[in-house]
Amino acid sequence: MMNAHANLALAALAFPAHMPNSKSSHIRSRRTRRPLLPLTMAAHPPIRTNIGMSTHGSASGGGEQAGISSTDRFRMIDFHHVEFWCADAASAAARFSFGLGVPLAAESGLSTGNTAHASHLLHSRSGSLALLFSAPYAQGDAVTASVPSFDADAARRFTADHGLAVRAMAVRVPDAGEAFRTSVDAGARPSFAPAELGHGFELAEVQLYGDVVLRFVSHPDDTAIPFLPGFGSVPSSGATPDYGLTRFDHIVGDVPHLAPVAAYIAGFTGFHEFSRFTADQVGTAESSLNVVVLANNSENVLLTVVEPVHGTKRRSQVQTYLDHHGGPGVQHLAMASNDVLGTLRKIRGRSTMGGFELLPPPPASYYDDVRRRAGDVLSEAQIKGCQELGVRVDKDDHGGVVLQIFTKAAGDRPTLLLEFIQRIGCMDKDENGQEYQRGGCGGFGQGNVTELFKSIEDYEKSLDASARLAA
Amino acid sequence: MMNAHANLALAALAFPAHMPNSKSSHIRSRRTRRPLLPLTMAAHPPIRTNIGMSTHGSASGGGEQAGISSTDRFRMIDFHHVEFWCADAASAAARFSFGLGVPLAAESGLSTGNTAHASHLLHSRSGSLALLFSAPYAQGDAVTASVPSFDADAARRFTADHGLAVRAMAVRVPDAGEAFRTSVDAGARPSFAPAELGHGFELAEVQLYGDVVLRFVSHPDDTAIPFLPGFGSVPSSGATPDYGLTRFDHIVGDVPHLAPVAAYIAGFTGFHEFSRFTADQVGTAESSLNVVVLANNSENVLLTVVEPVHGTKRRSQVQTYLDHHGGPGVQHLAMASNDVLGTLRKIRGRSTMGGFELLPPPPASYYDDVRRRAGDVLSEAQIKGCQELGVRVDKDDHGGVVLQIFTKAAGDRPTLLLEFIQRIGCMDKDENGQEYQRGGCGGFGQGNVTELFKSIEDYEKSLDASARLAA
Repeated sequence: MMNAHANLALAALAFPAHMPNSKSSHIRSRRTRRPLLPLTMAAHPPIRTNIGMSTHGSASGGGEQAGISSTDRFRMIDFHHVEFWCADAASAAARFSFGLGVPLAAESGLSTGNTAHASHLLHSRSGSLALLFSAPYAQGDAVTASVPSFDADAARRFTADHGLAVRAMAVRVPDAGEAFRTSVDAGARPSFAPAELGHGFELAEVQLYGDVVLRFVSHPDDTAIPFLPGFGSVPSSGATPDYGLTRFDHIVGDVPHLAPVAAYIAGFTGFHEFSRFTADQVGTAESSLNVVVLANNSENVLLTVVEPVHGTKRRSQVQTYLDHHGGPGVQHLAMASNDVLGTLRKIRGRSTMGGFELLPPPPASYYDDVRRRAGDVLSEAQIKGCQELGVRVDKDDHGGVVLQIFTKAAGDRPTLLLEFIQRIGCMDKDENGQEYQRGGCGGFGQGNVTELFKSIEDYEKSLDASARLAA
Repeated sequence: MMNAHANLALAALAFPAHMPNSKSSHIRSRRTRRPLLPLTMAAHPPIRTNIGMSTHGSASGGGEQAGISSTDRFRMIDFHHVEFWCADAASAAARFSFGLGVPLAAESGLSTGNTAHASHLLHSRSGSLALLFSAPYAQGDAVTASVPSFDADAARRFTADHGLAVRAMAVRVPDAGEAFRTSVDAGARPSFAPAELGHGFELAEVQLYGDVVLRFVSHPDDTAIPFLPGFGSVPSSGATPDYGLTRFDHIVGDVPHLAPVAAYIAGFTGFHEFSRFTADQVGTAESSLNVVVLANNSENVLLTVVEPVHGTKRRSQVQTYLDHHGGPGVQHLAMASNDVLGTLRKIRGRSTMGGFELLPPPPASYYDDVRRRAGDVLSEAQIKGCQELGVRVDKDDHGGVVLQIFTKAAGDRPTLLLEFIQRIGCMDKDENGQEYQRGGCGGFGQGNVTELFKSIEDYEKSLDASARLAA
C-alpha cells in the first residue's frame, strides 16, 4: 500500500509554484510519512517514472531485509563517501577534520604517484563516515588519477562557480557497472562510465542535480585497500581525536523545481517517497519551501530534495542558496552520532578557533514543549543538554525520537550547511536476530524541519546587510 | 660604504645561470652580508635601477632611526598583512587560525554589506601579524568591496592556477598614494591606482613578481577601524588561543630569474641588499638555488627572492615550485615569535588534527655543532628544545642568534611553506632610549639556509612517486 502510494505520489509529484502567504509556524510533533494535504498540479509536469515496472529491485535488492520497501532497481548498501572539489583540498580537509573530529585517514597525490589531483580522505573511527576533498594540480597526467572521473578543468570551474561545495555523493553498491547500466537504462544521465580500479573496485557516475553526481562504488567486503586503490593510509590518523560522527544520515539538495528532480532520481533508482513537507507544513511566517525525502528499500540512503516557494514576505532561503551557489547543489550533509550531545560539545569547543558554529538555540519555551512531547524517551539531563546546545527534538508516531541541529554556513557563502543528528528508538531485529535501528527512525520531524529552517532564516537575516547596517 | 656596495651589487645583480655541480653541503656558521664570491655575469642583463638617485628617501624615510641605510625611496613602516586569494576563504582562514594559533579578528562580506568578496582576517594578539583570506561570491557588486582592488574574475583564475597562494604582500606606508606614485615613477608596474577607503585609509598596489602584488596601505596611527573600513570585528576573537606569532619576519618569492626581479624591486623601492647566497654557499649535494634578501632602511621589511640553479643532479626545488605553482609566487612566509619553541610546541600539537606539519629534525650531530656555535647564547634546555622540535640554529658575527624551522607544504602542492623564526640578541637603543632589536638580527644564517633547503629537498624526495613506489 505504501509503495503504491509512493509511486502514485511520485508519478504525480507536484507542488504549487506559489503558495498563499499563510504559513503556519507552530510546531507539529507528528512524524509525517504521507502527504497531509491534497496536492495541486505542479507548474512543471511530472516526469514519467519507471516505478512499478522495475525488474531489478527484487533481483539485486537488499532492502527486503528491513521489509520496508522493495522498489529499488538495484541495491544500495549505504552511503560510501561525499567528495568536495576544492581549489586547495588540504585546507578544507584540515578544517573539517579539526572542526568535526573526523581523522585524516588516507591521501592520494604526488606521494602516491597521482599527479592529477591531491585528495585527502577523512574517515571516522566511530563508523563509516567518509569525507573526501580533492583539488587539481597545476599540470597532471589524468591517467594517474586515483579517482578516474576526476576532471581538472571541470574541478576548476566548479570551485570558481560554487566555492566550498559537494561534487559527488557516493553510494556503495554490489556492482557499480550494473548500477550504472540499470540507472542509465531507466533514464539516468550518464556522467562517467564504469571503470575498474583494480583490487575488485569499480566506480561509475550518473548526474544527480546541477553539477553534482551520484557515484557508484563497488568493492569486495574484505579489502586491505584504504578507501580506493591509489590511496595511501595516513600513519598519524590514530592519534587524531574522533568526536563520534558515524555516518551520513541524509543528504539534501536544493533545486529550483522539485518535481522533475525527485521524479528523475526516483525514476532511475527506484527509490520510494519516505516523507514530504509542503510549504503550509514547514514554512515559517515569512518564507517557505517544499521538501521530498526519497529512500532506498532499507531506508538507510535518504536523499532529500528541496525547492523554494516564491511570493512570500522574505525570499525563500532555498532561492538564496540557488543564487549564491550558482544553481542546484548539495545544501546540507546530515551526519549521525550515537551521542550527538557529546559530539556537539566537542564540535562547539572548536567553533571559535576555526571549527563550525552551531545555529543559536530556540527560546526556552521550546524545551517545555519538548518535555511534554519526548519526556518519556529523553531524560531531563538530555533535554537540558539539548537546550544548552540548541538541539531540536521531535518524535514520530512509533516513539522514535530525533535530535537535530544545523551549523551556520560551512564556507563563505550562505549555501552549504552541516547537520548533526541522532535517532533514538525504532530498534528491530533482522533474520539473524541482530538488532538494528530502522532507517529514518523518528522521521524528519516536521516540527524540527520548521524549527531548523526558521533558524536558518534567522541566520540569513543576520547576513542581511541593510538589517545589519540599520541596527 | 655598505649602501654604495649594495647599490653596486644590485646594479650588476648577477648569478650564473648554470653552476658547476660541486655544491658544498657542510654547515657554515658565519653570517653573510656580502657576496663571498666574485659574481659572473648573468644570463639576463641587469635592469638599470634608480638607486642613488632617490630624492624621496630622506624626505619620507624613517629608516634613519636605525641608522642602517638610507636608500629607501619612500618609508615602509612595517609589513601590514598578507592576503591569500581563495575559492573558499572560510576554510583556509579557519585552518590557519587553528593551525597557527592566530585568532580570527575581523570579517567582511554579506554581513557587512560587501557582496563582492568574503574576507576573513586573522590577527595575532601577540603582535601585528595579519593574514587575510578572501574569496569571491557568486555574483557581487564590485563597488561594495572592502578591498577595492579585489577582482572576482582574477581571483577565480588565481586560485584555479595556483591553489593555496598569496596574492598580496601589504606594507604600511605613511602615504599609500605617494608610495604608489613614487614607485611607478621609478619603474614599478602599476596594478591598482590609489583609492581612499574612508577614515583616513588609502590603498594602492604595484606588481611584485608573477601575479603577486605589493600593496601599500596608509592609515592614521590612532584608528578604531578593525583592519580596513568595511570590516567588522569578530566578537569571539578574544576566546581564541594565540600561540605567540608576532609579525612577518621576511617573505620569500620564487622566480625563474633572480636578477631582473631583484633589480626591479630594489629599483622602485630603493631597498638595499641585505644578504645573498649563491649556489656554492647554500646548495645541497644534489640541487641548488641563488638567494638575494632585500631590505628597507630599517631592515624590518625583508623581501627575499630566489631562483633555481639548473644542471644539478636533482631538479632545483625552486623549479619544482615554479612548475607546481604555475609561475613565480610567494614560496614562504616567515613568521616571528618571541618564544619560538613554545609557539612550535603548540603548532606541533595541532599537526595531526588539521594543523601544519613541521619538517623533521636534522641528525643529532647537528646539535653538537649548535652547542659549539651558540652555546654561549642558548641554554642547554633551549638547545634540547631545538633538537626536539627540529629547529635550526645559526649565529651571526655580532653574536645574534637565529632559530628557524619550516613546515611541510601548507597546501596541496609542493609550493607554499611557512617558516617560524626567532631572532635573539642585537638589542639597540633608539634616540629616545627605547630598546629595540635590529632588523634581521642573526642574519639569514647561511648554514640554516643550507639546512632548511636540504630539509625541503628531503621532503620533496618523499613526494617523489617513483621513490615511494620503489620503497
